[in-house]
Amino acid sequence: MYKKKKILLFDLLNKCKIRYDKKSTKNLIIESAESISSSNTNFIAVFHSLKYLDFLKKTKACTVLLNNNLLKYLPKKKNYVLSENPLIDFAKILNFFYPNSYYSKIDYKKLLETEIKKKYKYIKFGINFYLENDVKIGRNVFIGNNVTIKKGCVIGNNVIIGSNVIIENSIICDDVHICDNSVIGKKGFGFKFENNTCVRIPHIGKVIINKGCEIGSNCVIDRGSISNTILGENTFVDNLVQIAHNVVIGKKCILASQVGIAGSTHIGNNVIIGGQAGISGHLTIGNNVKIGGKSGVTNDIEDNKVVMGYPAKSFRDFLKNSK
Amino acid sequence: MYKKKKILLFDLLNKCKIRYDKKSTKNLIIESAESISSSNTNFIAVFHSLKYLDFLKKTKACTVLLNNNLLKYLPKKKNYVLSENPLIDFAKILNFFYPNSYYSKIDYKKLLETEIKKKYKYIKFGINFYLENDVKIGRNVFIGNNVTIKKGCVIGNNVIIGSNVIIENSIICDDVHICDNSVIGKKGFGFKFENNTCVRIPHIGKVIINKGCEIGSNCVIDRGSISNTILGENTFVDNLVQIAHNVVIGKKCILASQVGIAGSTHIGNNVIIGGQAGISGHLTIGNNVKIGGKSGVTNDIEDNKVVMGYPAKSFRDFLKNSK
Amino acid sequence: MYKKKKILLFDLLNKCKIRYDKKSTKNLIIESAESISSSNTNFIAVFHSLKYLDFLKKTKACTVLLNNNLLKYLPKKKNYVLSENPLIDFAKILNFFYPNSYYSKIDYKKLLETEIKKKYKYIKFGINFYLENDVKIGRNVFIGNNVTIKKGCVIGNNVIIGSNVIIENSIICDDVHICDNSVIGKKGFGFKFENNTCVRIPHIGKVIINKGCEIGSNCVIDRGSISNTILGENTFVDNLVQIAHNVVIGKKCILASQVGIAGSTHIGNNVIIGGQAGISGHLTIGNNVKIGGKSGVTNDIEDNKVVMGYPAKSFRDFLKNSK
Repeated sequence: MYKKKKILLFDLLNKCKIRYDKKSTKNLIIESAESISSSNTNFIAVFHSLKYLDFLKKTKACTVLLNNNLLKYLPKKKNYVLSENPLIDFAKILNFFYPNSYYSKIDYKKLLETEIKKKYKYIKFGINFYLENDVKIGRNVFIGNNVTIKKGCVIGNNVIIGSNVIIENSIICDDVHICDNSVIGKKGFGFKFENNTCVRIPHIGKVIINKGCEIGSNCVIDRGSISNTILGENTFVDNLVQIAHNVVIGKKCILASQVGIAGSTHIGNNVIIGGQAGISGHLTIGNNVKIGGKSGVTNDIEDNKVVMGYPAKSFRDFLKNSK
Repeated sequence: MYKKKKILLFDLLNKCKIRYDKKSTKNLIIESAESISSSNTNFIAVFHSLKYLDFLKKTKACTVLLNNNLLKYLPKKKNYVLSENPLIDFAKILNFFYPNSYYSKIDYKKLLETEIKKKYKYIKFGINFYLENDVKIGRNVFIGNNVTIKKGCVIGNNVIIGSNVIIENSIICDDVHICDNSVIGKKGFGFKFENNTCVRIPHIGKVIINKGCEIGSNCVIDRGSISNTILGENTFVDNLVQIAHNVVIGKKCILASQVGIAGSTHIGNNVIIGGQAGISGHLTIGNNVKIGGKSGVTNDIEDNKVVMGYPAKSFRDFLKNSK
Repeated sequence: MYKKKKILLFDLLNKCKIRYDKKSTKNLIIESAESISSSNTNFIAVFHSLKYLDFLKKTKACTVLLNNNLLKYLPKKKNYVLSENPLIDFAKILNFFYPNSYYSKIDYKKLLETEIKKKYKYIKFGINFYLENDVKIGRNVFIGNNVTIKKGCVIGNNVIIGSNVIIENSIICDDVHICDNSVIGKKGFGFKFENNTCVRIPHIGKVIINKGCEIGSNCVIDRGSISNTILGENTFVDNLVQIAHNVVIGKKCILASQVGIAGSTHIGNNVIIGGQAGISGHLTIGNNVKIGGKSGVTNDIEDNKVVMGYPAKSFRDFLKNSK
């Protein structure tokens, strides 16, 4: 979906209007930008938090954007770009390589119904189906009315998609059921303010919904910014649930209605989350955790714990407190 | 909407791959399956909780699926099927009698616009109306754009339906107003895991929205599993509200925005529920109850009580605690 | 959008079946009804709360509907109509001047695609676009699939509107991005019960979304009853957010996912509201306030405060309590 563009680093930084330390920067050929963990040779990546130190040590990126405080963690001989606001600057660089990835637009080029019928013989679809180019769809797929599927998506076998569903930048695996009015793969809620101007963070990641999952009605699952938003096999999601960018959920989890998971939180396998519970961003929730309805989770949770409350604590403490 | 199928009990149990105690089972003719309260002669029902003991005593079902622990409650001379997982096995039996009732698909057979205009003279509808067969619609009905109404639905007089609304398995009575983007009658969030495989619970119930109700935008009201989901007359529901399967709400209730009611909870008349409040499943809320915004209700509430908090307690206690 | 109708006050009150004190009422010519602050000469307004005393003193309305308790606050020589239920009676009067403003219907008169292309040369739109008459749309506007825009709306330049979005009674300024499946400008959740009958409050206000705002997916922003619902410049709203009638939000605010703001609350500039937080109605939240995720705000908040909890208190107290 996204194209590589060869450009000299100095040209790139100038085009993006980035202020950087020129003395320490080497003028390499850059082909693209990605996360520090997935970047390839000739890529530029950003390093902005010690959380990603392990990735920094192994990154293939030919140069790394960072600020002065983090410079000491850089492996020797690795090239770098010093800037004061690496995250904002990296957003501008992503915008250069992946234009249009900070909005959610259609491309106004749909397949005709006859083309769809010829190319996708083993699917059924309702009225008013809007399908862009370059979409793979498996066999025995049922699609409702007024569905929009944008370019580059992959839909597996035996998938059922309800009416009014919108899917972009997503991989939907076999046996998944997505109910009416849900929005899958929209760009996430990411932006930074710089001198009173809003810089939107491009979202170049995907949503990956693995085999056997079910998504309720009126849900929103945002695609990742640089990495992906992932639901593990056989995870069940009820109605009106929000799953933010870069969230990773394990297998066989159950998310009841109106649950909200903030960005970049990772959830293990067999986790049960009660209705209206919310989980803050950037947390790690272990396997087999049970989170009571309406809980507000603000800290990591270890495997096998049962928590409830706001802020969430052990179920025993919750009961004690509530007396 | 659903057809009866005559089958011998042994054949039914084999087809559904159910493990049962053969010695104690009598091979009767079975025509359908329903809840223990609504089952007719020649029906098979399930008994899985003492909550339904009164219904067990009166049930017309010719045979009852249950486990060994509950066998002692069975009326004398009543036939039964002993199984280890009666609920999962009953789900399989329901799947046999009501195929397709554990998903929410369209049937890909819409009426043409000319047929709609001929058959439904007293309604107005927007563009892209998808109407299946066998739907009753009253007079003076206004339907927005991109509306999907599936077979078997009944819509009363003076009903206003917003755009992008999807209605299936529902009875919408006179003077009801449903706002844009709401989903009414979708299958509920029910499933059980059996040996690592997910068994979906079929949803054969309906949504019944009685006279004068109003439903906001982006709401989801799931149909019942075996019984129905019901809203009483003149009940008002704001935007983004979740009403789960088998919920029963009385007359003249007010549900503010983002409220969530979990499955099988019963709510009396004149109940006011503040925004973002959540009510756990299988509870009974009395008449004239007031539930403060954002409350988390985890226990039954008697008539005329005012509660608030999480877990919800009397309003006086909530105020005391919050100081 | 709304027309004036000249009518004698006595005729108006009779037509609306309003019981009033005839002796004290002067039979003026009435042309319309609006809020006490925006009413013009020949308008009738209502005064029902001391909150609006300043407006009462300056109102241009030729006569004011109120009850006996508030009569003493009326400026000398101002005409008035004494009634027992001024709010309900005013709703009936609004219904007379603005019929259809208590429902959200389409008008069944869409522009043809050729007309749209001729009249709106500088926009792109997806399939199945329903556009009513009398809509202004700027340049460089991108509209998704299945979008409904109703008469009287104004859309600025460089606006991006996602698929399945419904907009009515709204002014959308330049550079606004509205994501898929959101509903903007629907009538609010307002009604009163009178002798067991529900009287719906007409919603004649607008939604005004100022320059540079972003609205997520599956959001609902209701239009104002008499005044407007307003979002200030560069305010960002995540998915599944509810903004009720008459809410006013300042500039550069951030509302995370599943936030709910109840009716008539005013929020300052640079306010950050965490996910799933709720704010009660009729509150005033100052500038630069930070509200933690899942907080339940039940009182006004001064500038620069950081609050969290339910009910929300200072962040320090929240941390202390939660230990």
